[in-house]
Amino acid sequence: MQTVVIDCDPGVDDAAALLWAMAEGAALDLAAITVVAGNVPLDWTSTNARRLATLAGRHDVPVHAGCGRPMVLALETAEHVHGDSGLDGAELPPPASELAPPHAIDRLIDLAHAHDGLTICAIGPLTNVAMALVKEPSIASRLGRIVLMGGAIGLGNVTASAEFNIYVDPHAAKVVFESGVPIVMLGLDVTTQVRPTPARLDALRALENATSKALADMFDLYVSRASDGGALHDPLAVAYLLMPEAFRGRDCHVEVVTEGVCRGRTIVDVSGRGGRLANAFVLERVDGDAVFQRLLDALRRLP
Amino acid sequence: MQTVVIDCDPGVDDAAALLWAMAEGAALDLAAITVVAGNVPLDWTSTNARRLATLAGRHDVPVHAGCGRPMVLALETAEHVHGDSGLDGAELPPPASELAPPHAIDRLIDLAHAHDGLTICAIGPLTNVAMALVKEPSIASRLGRIVLMGGAIGLGNVTASAEFNIYVDPHAAKVVFESGVPIVMLGLDVTTQVRPTPARLDALRALENATSKALADMFDLYVSRASDGGALHDPLAVAYLLMPEAFRGRDCHVEVVTEGVCRGRTIVDVSGRGGRLANAFVLERVDGDAVFQRLLDALRRLP
Amino acid sequence: MQTVVIDCDPGVDDAAALLWAMAEGAALDLAAITVVAGNVPLDWTSTNARRLATLAGRHDVPVHAGCGRPMVLALETAEHVHGDSGLDGAELPPPASELAPPHAIDRLIDLAHAHDGLTICAIGPLTNVAMALVKEPSIASRLGRIVLMGGAIGLGNVTASAEFNIYVDPHAAKVVFESGVPIVMLGLDVTTQVRPTPARLDALRALENATSKALADMFDLYVSRASDGGALHDPLAVAYLLMPEAFRGRDCHVEVVTEGVCRGRTIVDVSGRGGRLANAFVLERVDGDAVFQRLLDALRRLP
Amino acid sequence: MQTVVIDCDPGVDDAAALLWAMAEGAALDLAAITVVAGNVPLDWTSTNARRLATLAGRHDVPVHAGCGRPMVLALETAEHVHGDSGLDGAELPPPASELAPPHAIDRLIDLAHAHDGLTICAIGPLTNVAMALVKEPSIASRLGRIVLMGGAIGLGNVTASAEFNIYVDPHAAKVVFESGVPIVMLGLDVTTQVRPTPARLDALRALENATSKALADMFDLYVSRASDGGALHDPLAVAYLLMPEAFRGRDCHVEVVTEGVCRGRTIVDVSGRGGRLANAFVLERVDGDAVFQRLLDALRRLP
Repeated sequence: MQTVVIDCDPGVDDAAALLWAMAEGAALDLAAITVVAGNVPLDWTSTNARRLATLAGRHDVPVHAGCGRPMVLALETAEHVHGDSGLDGAELPPPASELAPPHAIDRLIDLAHAHDGLTICAIGPLTNVAMALVKEPSIASRLGRIVLMGGAIGLGNVTASAEFNIYVDPHAAKVVFESGVPIVMLGLDVTTQVRPTPARLDALRALENATSKALADMFDLYVSRASDGGALHDPLAVAYLLMPEAFRGRDCHVEVVTEGVCRGRTIVDVSGRGGRLANAFVLERVDGDAVFQRLLDALRRLP
Repeated sequence: MQTVVIDCDPGVDDAAALLWAMAEGAALDLAAITVVAGNVPLDWTSTNARRLATLAGRHDVPVHAGCGRPMVLALETAEHVHGDSGLDGAELPPPASELAPPHAIDRLIDLAHAHDGLTICAIGPLTNVAMALVKEPSIASRLGRIVLMGGAIGLGNVTASAEFNIYVDPHAAKVVFESGVPIVMLGLDVTTQVRPTPARLDALRALENATSKALADMFDLYVSRASDGGALHDPLAVAYLLMPEAFRGRDCHVEVVTEGVCRGRTIVDVSGRGGRLANAFVLERVDGDAVFQRLLDALRRLP
Repeated sequence: MQTVVIDCDPGVDDAAALLWAMAEGAALDLAAITVVAGNVPLDWTSTNARRLATLAGRHDVPVHAGCGRPMVLALETAEHVHGDSGLDGAELPPPASELAPPHAIDRLIDLAHAHDGLTICAIGPLTNVAMALVKEPSIASRLGRIVLMGGAIGLGNVTASAEFNIYVDPHAAKVVFESGVPIVMLGLDVTTQVRPTPARLDALRALENATSKALADMFDLYVSRASDGGALHDPLAVAYLLMPEAFRGRDCHVEVVTEGVCRGRTIVDVSGRGGRLANAFVLERVDGDAVFQRLLDALRRLP
Repeated sequence: MQTVVIDCDPGVDDAAALLWAMAEGAALDLAAITVVAGNVPLDWTSTNARRLATLAGRHDVPVHAGCGRPMVLALETAEHVHGDSGLDGAELPPPASELAPPHAIDRLIDLAHAHDGLTICAIGPLTNVAMALVKEPSIASRLGRIVLMGGAIGLGNVTASAEFNIYVDPHAAKVVFESGVPIVMLGLDVTTQVRPTPARLDALRALENATSKALADMFDLYVSRASDGGALHDPLAVAYLLMPEAFRGRDCHVEVVTEGVCRGRTIVDVSGRGGRLANAFVLERVDGDAVFQRLLDALRRLP
């Protein structure tokens, strides 16, 4: 069974990803949740991650707070989509557990040393992951892979050029893509293939457990706020861990733009024209129905 | 009847555009052809334009040589696609006419002053057009529109970020997009919808005139050399002049990146998220069969 | 006797340069004055150049209007230093002559072809000069040299990084420095060695002719407005033409920054550490008293 | 007595700074030495710091290894000046102590929390300091000041634009200058006012203790290798801690350029023209003789 850390900034779609991962205890050894500032500030994301663990009844999964700001730039958040709390739209329980020591950066380093081939599933800005790689470069050769939700081959969502997670901390993204760790990039080109349609939200609500109802309520608000109707961005990263056969992609060189008008753009050399070695497996297609069905099957098991 | 100048850098696909436009004498008042360095150096492009006028029997269309280098950067050409001459693959007649005075920049300025609402159809790097706008800014309010082949909403062709014409002279493109002149942008997203397939080249050859045969021969070589199989890039700009109803597009703000790793990228704010006023009508779809049929009908009329 | 064109944007210190050059008819063959937008818009600079020719009684020197905007960026002017007219502070005669055809770009090209080793003395933004080099690249090998006032080894004046002339049209400066034409760069490091002190302005006024009085009056206002007390920037370029032995400098590679926070900076590799070939003779020191004495001697000869 | 951490990358001039600081036990409470990659890789700098502590007989000062690479960019080192070991030219004792835990980043955070108004004296690339500020932003309000050797108002030393420490990790420098912590910037403009002249090196050797002899030997080689003759860069930061009255400076806004041809430049707005609030006290002048005399007096006390 693969050992996984989820690095996240919940956020509504992070919530779906976390709940799903916590419901897949038979398939995923979820060693820790590490939290970063992104969709909302760190105080909220680190509270939200614990509320979600409480909701899912997974008191065994430690939650570690990480970086409250990007590596170089000032933090920009997305309350206009996720609400002030990051998880607006549902009543969630207060967290039943404290934040676990140590700092997320150090927890990532420790886990990389403790587990051969650890998977980091990164669904927020990449600050924690990059900071760990800079603080302790030796982990690059210990990590198995980084499966990340971020970037786009085509158009972005926060600007015409950039997807939110990469935009918020492009320097961290550059460090990660240049780290030599095997990368799976799940960008907007794929995530926008799986929309939270009314039919899907109805199916979620029909599971009739508290967790799924809360998730559906949050998605209702999120869909109404996202200018493009929203997408199941982050859960697809968990989907890739569980059912990679539902995805298609290719090895490409990806370069991250850190400054200027294209800040946060992931330049994906799909044609290979640029001649540089591939540093990521870039996903291009997903079987959305298969993925959503497994999400439903998993959430059914939660309280 | 609309008065048009074609500013070009022939080039195989420019050849198709020029021949088509010269065959449409009943629909287009082709006041001049102005030539720029691009696919190949200016000596070749200015010879090629005259050879094509000779081939089409249009001795009445003056050809004016323009800029032999981009505004700021060093010239980069594309002989690997178009051949050393720019029109490899067919025997073309020597030019029957001399280059006409004055310099293309000045010819564009003169025509803008002489004709209300002149259309510039620009299918090469935008050096000549931008230089005219800088030399004589008053023409901006005289010009009717600039229909340009260049840029992309999605991926580029010369790099992952940039299309060739914009890449070669991004500063000129920036000047043009910021000029206030109404712009129609025909980018790779549209041109790659009309491929020079074997069936289409067969239909071209079946016209059984010298011009069409020469064009088909040039396209054979071009298709074999273009890494992506080539496209009818430039002729579609002429198509837009003749049959705009075959196209779909939308008003967008377009920003041109002039430096760095995204040099030559056209950032098209399709969603309008950036909040800046539209400065171009960006084409998104074309009815390729309708367009190609009209191209055939036109070329049938040539020698 | 060397043949010279002065390309300028008067401007108070340009005025001193022009008057000086027009008073040195025995030493300089002043073939033309070409005018560009800079300190104030083109309408004013092209009027001012003619008013100065009228003041100096040099009706034989044609004044050619050039570019009203930089090559790529929007025009930024300096009325806060030079006044709305560009020459505030004195009553100048109305111009006694019309602007001469052709456009400054074309006049520069014509003169480059007509005279072996023409000197362009450029004391405004380099737009006209660069546009001529792009329109007709062959003049690069015809020109003798470009003596330009612009840039700095050390700190700038319009920003911490950039001197005004280069800042206004950095792309033009880049074209000029990369043109292969021998360049003499007179930057702020030198011009700030010759201040318009009260003693010097008194000496100017003591010449007791109308021209010198007008110049002194303009400088009074200019000195009070310039945040750094002003300097005899532009006249020093004329000084270099007349008495190069009063200057010290060295061959350096100079690179112009066109974008970003250092826009307009001239990176002068004084130590040669960068290893690129020198493309300019960069002045470092001047004998200010000798230069100012010759300026006085010359102005004494004017009406 | 002020409590100080020295963050360094020894390096010959770092060696002088460290030995001096360790000889000033009555004036400085040297809580720790933290080490970063810079002049040479981290393995060497962390060994060198301990060899210097051993040489000075300061076994009480813990040495903590920090980051082995810059935050975003690849490491560039300066063995051509400092030698492969970083301290070529003298026989130094092997380190008598081990590296102390924890990682330098965490030691800086702990000390900031433990001491009110801690001074960080940073004489290498600013990676450790910036990483601590990103990992634990709360320390910004705890720190008293950061006295840093780096940057320049005028020309750089590694390029025409940049000084070495800032060039190596410009992103870290940007984080530090934007942190809100009071900064004292000691740049090349000041350090090049105190050269390691033969007379000074003779005076050092005349102290006739092992430490001073080793230091003089290292400087002999360093002077012969530095293209500009070298300077007492880093010791001046210690000098500022001990005798600030020997320096003159002013409050300025400093911006760090992180990318492009000016990478690593510190744009110091000396005139205040840019209108942004000062974020550093930028030193401009030093009484070199007074400083050097105190260095001699201090080193005399070492073994």
